[in-house]
Amino acid sequence: MANRIIGSTPKDDGYRMPGEFEEQERIFMLWPWRNDNWRLGAKPAQKAYVNVAKAISKYEPVTVCVPPEQYENAVARFTAAGNDNIRVVEMTSDDAWIRDCGPTFLINDKGGRRAVDWEFNAWGGLVDGLYFPWNQDALVARKVCEMTDTDSYKTEGFVLEGGSIHVDGEGTVMVTEMCLLSEGRNPEMSKEEIENMLKNYLNCEKVLWIKDGIDPYETNGHIDDVACFVRPGEVACLYTDDPNHPFYKEAQAAYKFLSEQTDAKGRKLKVHKMCATKEPCYLKDADSIDYSEGAIPREEGEISIASYMNFLIVNNAIILPQYGDENDALAVKCAKEMFPERDIVPVRTEEVAYGGGNIHCITQQMPAIK
Amino acid sequence: MANRIIGSTPKDDGYRMPGEFEEQERIFMLWPWRNDNWRLGAKPAQKAYVNVAKAISKYEPVTVCVPPEQYENAVARFTAAGNDNIRVVEMTSDDAWIRDCGPTFLINDKGGRRAVDWEFNAWGGLVDGLYFPWNQDALVARKVCEMTDTDSYKTEGFVLEGGSIHVDGEGTVMVTEMCLLSEGRNPEMSKEEIENMLKNYLNCEKVLWIKDGIDPYETNGHIDDVACFVRPGEVACLYTDDPNHPFYKEAQAAYKFLSEQTDAKGRKLKVHKMCATKEPCYLKDADSIDYSEGAIPREEGEISIASYMNFLIVNNAIILPQYGDENDALAVKCAKEMFPERDIVPVRTEEVAYGGGNIHCITQQMPAIK
Repeated sequence: MANRIIGSTPKDDGYRMPGEFEEQERIFMLWPWRNDNWRLGAKPAQKAYVNVAKAISKYEPVTVCVPPEQYENAVARFTAAGNDNIRVVEMTSDDAWIRDCGPTFLINDKGGRRAVDWEFNAWGGLVDGLYFPWNQDALVARKVCEMTDTDSYKTEGFVLEGGSIHVDGEGTVMVTEMCLLSEGRNPEMSKEEIENMLKNYLNCEKVLWIKDGIDPYETNGHIDDVACFVRPGEVACLYTDDPNHPFYKEAQAAYKFLSEQTDAKGRKLKVHKMCATKEPCYLKDADSIDYSEGAIPREEGEISIASYMNFLIVNNAIILPQYGDENDALAVKCAKEMFPERDIVPVRTEEVAYGGGNIHCITQQMPAIK
Repeated sequence: MANRIIGSTPKDDGYRMPGEFEEQERIFMLWPWRNDNWRLGAKPAQKAYVNVAKAISKYEPVTVCVPPEQYENAVARFTAAGNDNIRVVEMTSDDAWIRDCGPTFLINDKGGRRAVDWEFNAWGGLVDGLYFPWNQDALVARKVCEMTDTDSYKTEGFVLEGGSIHVDGEGTVMVTEMCLLSEGRNPEMSKEEIENMLKNYLNCEKVLWIKDGIDPYETNGHIDDVACFVRPGEVACLYTDDPNHPFYKEAQAAYKFLSEQTDAKGRKLKVHKMCATKEPCYLKDADSIDYSEGAIPREEGEISIASYMNFLIVNNAIILPQYGDENDALAVKCAKEMFPERDIVPVRTEEVAYGGGNIHCITQQMPAIK
């Protein structure tokens, strides 16, 4: 059995969360299936997930974890897509956001790899969570750790999703107050206590607190729609100078904040601009989504959170969301300017946005051991 | 994706099923849970499975595949058992006999490993199968192959269970007519056609057809309750000289038959005797087994198939069933005489016999690549 580590923290034990830009061994994904979240029986979403997995698999292996009822279907679809670098395994889940319910992998400098298994409560539990129950999602991190023989730290009672943190691997973590101080996460803890959890479990010295994210009602403002580390000392930030854009205020504030910050090593941050979509993305065909008591209702024409910031960094490439928006090509250009050393691989994923996230939300990297 | 190999057979491609006594990489098991097959909510059976896994794990790694509803329970039980060499992964199944529904692994002499994914129909399908449906069991081989990146041959329409074959890895396969010629397997095929399937998919030249097994109503007489290869040129066979023993006639016939055979290499077989239990094993507390339309009813006092032959060979050891019978110690002695170079590890498993098999039936070896 992969062990549960009791009585110490990653910081105590010399483990750190590496930057996403560091070398990776494999990407994990889940498989969308819920008819009360995804349009049209989740078939368009499944197609988008297949395309994302295919794009990643040209750069590193992918494991897609699929509930038993969908196993044959997923195997058939990946077989049709014809790729050797994708593995399909059975895993039950409540939905398909492994960034948030999966393990946060850690490494040390002696060839060791461990993980943090955070408490997961579907983005707010009974306060403002997005579905009920979430018990299968809450087991995903454990199952991935078991499957990969990874010992893990369980933060009993401390709620956090992987999409609410970004690190530089050198002591700095970036979060939003909107999410980490939300009522549905850890309301009994002070900001300082939450800082200490981040510092101890990610092995960081400095927390950069951006005030707001762009989706107050879904993830309560995950950082991974707003900003990320490009490399140590450099960040990317969502940017628009269109005051009518729905994300204008939050993006401007985040950009201004980051431009004034130094990281844990004392470096003044270089901030790269990532464009926003020209037009907001609106949910279509909402009536093809089932009604259920356990999930939030979806309404025709509601805003879907479509941010080009929700890209995934993999070995030698960026897997970048595209929305059929006028700014798709500009986003590719922005990404190439930040990451001249990597391929930029655009994938159409508005269907994933309709479900509540994007490429970064549906993936989880396992870093390479060093 | 692990590939499905189309248009060729293992014999064509130079792959063979190695003898169980050859070096192994890992053992796979499933997890018992069906209340309509196992006594007392399957709790005593789960304990026996944990003990078998623990015994094996001292010699090589074990992966236990557990349905989602039982995942937390299985993790807790294996954690309590405290062993690092056991991995628990999610896998849905209809019952817990991976010998029969799992893949048959093959190797070549160039470091390659593949598998055969036989058609599985719950030991006789709608003719005399043991439960319905069996669709999840039928996916187990595929899932294990995916998980281990093993390309496989699918024998579309050709039904076979791993417990109905034993090979010496040098061209000889041993089966029973009772099973392989049963009405519920491949009734449209001639004996010669079935021989050819065995020869092509296991890469053998000679089939030794023992007439009968000892459980006509469950597995239709699987070979793995009767005889196996100890090493090339040597076999073990169930033996009793008590004419009142329920397996007397079949055991005597098998022993006589094997004593007169040569293998594919022309060697006259040396036959080791494995004792039978002194007393038959009778099902107790049958009323703690649920009734369901989908499974055969179990009756108080019916004979459970308890054979010491149903042992598993692992690296450097034999995992040997014990039934609380007077002959338990004698079985250990018999095993030690056949396998003087291996540890003999006895494990109490009458609970597994109550469910319909034993240690060999609940395990599947993945051979080491060479």
